[in-house]
Amino acid sequence: MPLSPEQQAEIDALRANPQPTLRTVAPGMEAHLYRAHQVLDHGFVRVIDYMGDDAAITQAARVSYGKGTKSVQNDEGLIRYLMRHWHSTPFEMCEIKLHVKLPVFVARQWIRHRTANVNEYSARYSILDREFYIPQPDALAAQSSVNNQGRGEVLTGAEAERVLEILKSDAGRSYDHYEEMLSQDGQQGLARELARMNLPANIYTQWYWKVDLHNLFHFLRLRADAHAQYEIRVYADTICNVVKDWVPAAYGAFEDYRMGGATLSSKAIDCLRRMLKGEKVTQETSGMSKGEWREFSEVVG
Amino acid sequence: MPLSPEQQAEIDALRANPQPTLRTVAPGMEAHLYRAHQVLDHGFVRVIDYMGDDAAITQAARVSYGKGTKSVQNDEGLIRYLMRHWHSTPFEMCEIKLHVKLPVFVARQWIRHRTANVNEYSARYSILDREFYIPQPDALAAQSSVNNQGRGEVLTGAEAERVLEILKSDAGRSYDHYEEMLSQDGQQGLARELARMNLPANIYTQWYWKVDLHNLFHFLRLRADAHAQYEIRVYADTICNVVKDWVPAAYGAFEDYRMGGATLSSKAIDCLRRMLKGEKVTQETSGMSKGEWREFSEVVG
Amino acid sequence: MPLSPEQQAEIDALRANPQPTLRTVAPGMEAHLYRAHQVLDHGFVRVIDYMGDDAAITQAARVSYGKGTKSVQNDEGLIRYLMRHWHSTPFEMCEIKLHVKLPVFVARQWIRHRTANVNEYSARYSILDREFYIPQPDALAAQSSVNNQGRGEVLTGAEAERVLEILKSDAGRSYDHYEEMLSQDGQQGLARELARMNLPANIYTQWYWKVDLHNLFHFLRLRADAHAQYEIRVYADTICNVVKDWVPAAYGAFEDYRMGGATLSSKAIDCLRRMLKGEKVTQETSGMSKGEWREFSEVVG
Amino acid sequence: MPLSPEQQAEIDALRANPQPTLRTVAPGMEAHLYRAHQVLDHGFVRVIDYMGDDAAITQAARVSYGKGTKSVQNDEGLIRYLMRHWHSTPFEMCEIKLHVKLPVFVARQWIRHRTANVNEYSARYSILDREFYIPQPDALAAQSSVNNQGRGEVLTGAEAERVLEILKSDAGRSYDHYEEMLSQDGQQGLARELARMNLPANIYTQWYWKVDLHNLFHFLRLRADAHAQYEIRVYADTICNVVKDWVPAAYGAFEDYRMGGATLSSKAIDCLRRMLKGEKVTQETSGMSKGEWREFSEVVG
Repeated sequence: MPLSPEQQAEIDALRANPQPTLRTVAPGMEAHLYRAHQVLDHGFVRVIDYMGDDAAITQAARVSYGKGTKSVQNDEGLIRYLMRHWHSTPFEMCEIKLHVKLPVFVARQWIRHRTANVNEYSARYSILDREFYIPQPDALAAQSSVNNQGRGEVLTGAEAERVLEILKSDAGRSYDHYEEMLSQDGQQGLARELARMNLPANIYTQWYWKVDLHNLFHFLRLRADAHAQYEIRVYADTICNVVKDWVPAAYGAFEDYRMGGATLSSKAIDCLRRMLKGEKVTQETSGMSKGEWREFSEVVG
Repeated sequence: MPLSPEQQAEIDALRANPQPTLRTVAPGMEAHLYRAHQVLDHGFVRVIDYMGDDAAITQAARVSYGKGTKSVQNDEGLIRYLMRHWHSTPFEMCEIKLHVKLPVFVARQWIRHRTANVNEYSARYSILDREFYIPQPDALAAQSSVNNQGRGEVLTGAEAERVLEILKSDAGRSYDHYEEMLSQDGQQGLARELARMNLPANIYTQWYWKVDLHNLFHFLRLRADAHAQYEIRVYADTICNVVKDWVPAAYGAFEDYRMGGATLSSKAIDCLRRMLKGEKVTQETSGMSKGEWREFSEVVG
Repeated sequence: MPLSPEQQAEIDALRANPQPTLRTVAPGMEAHLYRAHQVLDHGFVRVIDYMGDDAAITQAARVSYGKGTKSVQNDEGLIRYLMRHWHSTPFEMCEIKLHVKLPVFVARQWIRHRTANVNEYSARYSILDREFYIPQPDALAAQSSVNNQGRGEVLTGAEAERVLEILKSDAGRSYDHYEEMLSQDGQQGLARELARMNLPANIYTQWYWKVDLHNLFHFLRLRADAHAQYEIRVYADTICNVVKDWVPAAYGAFEDYRMGGATLSSKAIDCLRRMLKGEKVTQETSGMSKGEWREFSEVVG
Repeated sequence: MPLSPEQQAEIDALRANPQPTLRTVAPGMEAHLYRAHQVLDHGFVRVIDYMGDDAAITQAARVSYGKGTKSVQNDEGLIRYLMRHWHSTPFEMCEIKLHVKLPVFVARQWIRHRTANVNEYSARYSILDREFYIPQPDALAAQSSVNNQGRGEVLTGAEAERVLEILKSDAGRSYDHYEEMLSQDGQQGLARELARMNLPANIYTQWYWKVDLHNLFHFLRLRADAHAQYEIRVYADTICNVVKDWVPAAYGAFEDYRMGGATLSSKAIDCLRRMLKGEKVTQETSGMSKGEWREFSEVVG
């Protein structure tokens, strides 16, 4: 990124020729098709295809629940009801296909979401490009002292400079050596499937990723969360903005019940009821561990 | 089936208003959208939505294999190569959503294919219609005497008449009693989730079923096979005809390598080589069991 | 049920000969192995095999989180932490295999949980037994007038008698006809795969069902819930009692965070904070729908 | 590898105390439990737990097929029948849990097999060890000139030396810099989740991997194949040796029908029949592409 003139021309060509279809069309999504949303320094997310819209969710629910759904007055109300009661199958009736370019260490987290279809660029068949993720200065954070998997303050001064210098020079040298090992100029040339092992985890890869809306929401709940690693969260945030335009009612319900919601344990519910009756509850009298009490306190404000 | 005037009018309305889209359009599939293909006496298969076409398969493969795919000259050749070498992920990039009406005992076989999304009409929420599968006379077969799960000759005469009479009268009586138990006329009325237990397995249900092309091919290989039960095979055959119009190149490869193909064991390959060298091989000298030898003989003709 | 003398003898034999193993052994589970826990009138749940215990969960978590898990003092605390933060993979490291006998209409709900392995008794190959679920009088409930998928009051008097009489006589007649159609006495005999279509949904089937602990908890959360249909809930309750003996710490966390917990939307959290500050909030001022407000009121007591 | 004295002591302790169980015990597998089978220079495969044996496969099949399975005389015959006819569910009734240490680029291929449970060592929480895969001289191969994803001849002389020197020095330098960035000695110390991005793909990671036997066979068919990358094939080969001791009958059927078998297209079957009738068939008269003909020729020898 930015896109090469050839890539932009290809996208423009794909966007120039709408064709008639009898399928459901989601106007908000058509505006996104093929366009590259930049993420990090060289990454992107592009919508390649989609199936369904908000109405496809309620249509499937009405097959299932028949006359039973008449009591819910309208589509948005029904979608909110389905989300609230964890009815997952109607949301599975929508599907999205994305083209994503992302650093390998992000891809390794992402792929753990198993219920999706993936075609990744293969470094056995092909040669990877010289593109590495180098964090912006404000993303260069120290290890958190309170959270084993978190970040603390942003690095400053000479330390930040040293880190950036290391990341850049190691990536460059590794790639120079990758090319040198592959070269068939005056030598045999190492197999691509072996040479790639020299490349660091911040090199970019790309894939097509296809997933249904239910599983996408599950991905977004975990990866657009404040505890997710920043470098995958920016991808999730970008996808959230796309989904909001695609299925606005479902996304609204997702925001309310999942992203902005919280799960309380039976102990927490018990404390809550005591507090609502006017009791002053502390961690000691709550029956909760310190960690759980801290999280509970954040919920009740 | 046949469709009610209301249903036909709804289908006509859905088919009357094509809208522009930037997505891939498969013309052969547009012709199928929403139309009901009749199956058995009251069942049908309708395409509700689809994603992708033959080109979407090769596009995904080219993301994966990059320049490596250049050696395969064209799309059809690449699709045949992918099918031959069991590369499943590019085929997963196409998706189809069907509306199917089918007898419950067929639905019970069908649902064992786990990698799909389903919304079934719920008899907890709603009342099932009075529609039962009653076989045509030529589908009324005796138990096979050689195959534990197969059919033998078609029943004839008084026996066939008795069977049809039983199936019809038991279905009718069960449904009468279903309605009688549900009725709130002068009584409380049994809960729907209980009353349904009186209904036999030939009553019709319906669902939305969404699946990717790779898993659909797996379903079709097993269910369009000569050993599948006739009542599910007719659904699979109907879907085959739809898929042929949707992704003709992929379907052609599927027919050649899967439906018309055969898998040989290492013992079978050994026999084959001996036969090609002119040796006369018998079951006794083959090292195979009787069953395996019979299947091998069918392959080599 | 009750078990035949032959079945009981087989179970006794299986339980008589412990063998040495180097694998993890869960003593609470050994006491359950092979024994049939009766469910409904003819059904049962039997543990056939299991893998892992509470320690297997923390062992897997420690592979993942390494030194990061040291801050959690002990195994039970770690398991509660994992459950609270939706870390599902460590729970997937335990596996259970059950033999279940259940009515077909229960099996149809159960099988919708796709992430499990199943081998069901096949009525294409074999003849089903003459065993039907006939509800106990106190399970014979009317349709709920407020909940489309629920039950209301228990039926009484003549209506209850009529319903029981219908269920019994229709089941008996259907089975008589099933046998009559299958019979090869003086006739060809209908194929088993066809004859079965005459059998009602309260006939018993059986299967082996194998699932990991994470997916089992998901099943139990939905099916041991007060809104689940009674006839599947009694199976889920029976399994809960088994799991409690198998992995007591994980089951305790499941009870606290899932079964006894509740999920609040962002709107609900907002209301809660206002209430804790002393504001009197009503449905009208809550921003919630009536249904959502009713559910929220149940949580806050 | 080799194991540290502490690791060996832990394994010895785990192996020292067999406990009684009522579950199925596979003696061949007990001999493998916990032992580390070395793979590559620092990797290993260890069996942590297992469920089932050959008899568990036939037991599940007999639940499904009831009396229908009586025609198959014995367990081994039944297992061969199930494998030949692609009956996958009985094989899913066995489960294995492995602890694997492997280079990251191997892990990236491995994880594409989605139907498995995984807990991987997290470099967000913990610091990776200084262990890198450096190929043995005879595994240092040139790019194949005929196969886009294959290897050609082994590198020799100065080129081989240069490649090894590059791999070693780049790995060492990257790890030095990883430690330097993490260090909190006189500086803040970069977050672990960021520092890891500097590490190359030949660094070792480890995970617990749990999978059922059907899906394991699918993995082994693809990864123990001659076309798989050598570095994953050695893991698959190691697992094959374990499986052979665990379920000898199932493994024998797998070898015969999958590893040593071949799939023929309908075109190939047609050619075969013509050849068996004495016709001389060439690629030109076969209707096959060059690639397909070459593969067919290898089968018929």
